[in-house]
Amino acid sequence: MLAFLGGTGPEGKGLALRLALAGEEVVIGSRDAQRARGSADELRQSAPGARIEGMDNSHAAAAAEVVFLTVPYEGQRPLLEQLGSSLAGKVLVDVIAPMRFERGRGASAVDVAAGSAAQEAQELAPDSRVVSAFQNVSAEELLRLDADMEGDVLVCSDHRDAKELVMGLTRRIPRLRPVDAGGLANSRYVEQITPLLVNINRIHKIHAGIRIVGLGEIPPVTR
Amino acid sequence: MLAFLGGTGPEGKGLALRLALAGEEVVIGSRDAQRARGSADELRQSAPGARIEGMDNSHAAAAAEVVFLTVPYEGQRPLLEQLGSSLAGKVLVDVIAPMRFERGRGASAVDVAAGSAAQEAQELAPDSRVVSAFQNVSAEELLRLDADMEGDVLVCSDHRDAKELVMGLTRRIPRLRPVDAGGLANSRYVEQITPLLVNINRIHKIHAGIRIVGLGEIPPVTR
Repeated sequence: MLAFLGGTGPEGKGLALRLALAGEEVVIGSRDAQRARGSADELRQSAPGARIEGMDNSHAAAAAEVVFLTVPYEGQRPLLEQLGSSLAGKVLVDVIAPMRFERGRGASAVDVAAGSAAQEAQELAPDSRVVSAFQNVSAEELLRLDADMEGDVLVCSDHRDAKELVMGLTRRIPRLRPVDAGGLANSRYVEQITPLLVNINRIHKIHAGIRIVGLGEIPPVTR
Repeated sequence: MLAFLGGTGPEGKGLALRLALAGEEVVIGSRDAQRARGSADELRQSAPGARIEGMDNSHAAAAAEVVFLTVPYEGQRPLLEQLGSSLAGKVLVDVIAPMRFERGRGASAVDVAAGSAAQEAQELAPDSRVVSAFQNVSAEELLRLDADMEGDVLVCSDHRDAKELVMGLTRRIPRLRPVDAGGLANSRYVEQITPLLVNINRIHKIHAGIRIVGLGEIPPVTR
């Protein structure tokens, strides 16, 4: 079971939908259980037969072995403090890119004392295995089921088994390619690509992603 | 005329070589004029007929309309202070990605008070027009003339005409694609991609670059 905490937002919904379509059992978490059930109902309409439930964040986290953090950065610390030791032993997938938006300046990265949101999560949930991934994947594209995804998912972690698990989940989404991007200290650079992509999106009117070139074959088109 | 200050290093040499092959007149700059002439001789052997000279940095900067900064980050401030007002009115292409290397940790970004190396250069040379570009392009691949380049060059500047000039120069290198990445404030994110790529290189034994996906056609293979 995969939980998406704060999964009523576009990034969480998009990832949950794509992974549910791949056959994973998913649960949307929210502070408000009713809202989580609403999002789960909505996603099931896009993916008939998929196993998607909604619960409050605590129950969603407790039910899953792999817990995705898809809240805005401001919500990460209170959420992890609330969940406390219930995350022990679980794989925690941090999808958060700390950003702010200013009129006329666009998106910019928010500095994090720990180095990155993912390193902060590992400090706040020391008994979980944090993996940083999916920050650079467009939520809009995840939710557009008529097209394959495009782009690479840079995956950082200090826990090899957890990293491999998340790389395997990435491969379940057609055409997304996981790229081992080393230890959690590299997550800072991956998270900071997101405000850059947001600004490129605004200039070029696209939903940008990135690919690493030089790595060999890109997964084939599936439709 | 294009000058490459600190152009005896691999990134400067590689860019100078590729642009000389495209028909541009280039000058390699170094603190030591003799060393600059040595690198120019070496490059001319790879590109017979190309117009490549060597001079000390001051003469190289004075001779060119477009001046590439290809020194290590530590060299940027002393170089720009030395050149002073001689850069006024010129286009200054900042290729520098501030990095350090630590045993066991790999590459990491060096924090820059101005936000990025390129913003610092604009502060130190306020009458030049700074453009940030080429940080994410592999020096090794630039110097391997048997293969086309691969990847995107993210170009940031607060000066539209200068940005367009550098995007045009990028297009002269086969298969490299310039991508308008907005104002100079975005250079921070572009510069920080370089230590990430260095770490990915080490994991995967490649010379990585990046591409922005979602932008449409990639330039065709030329050979």
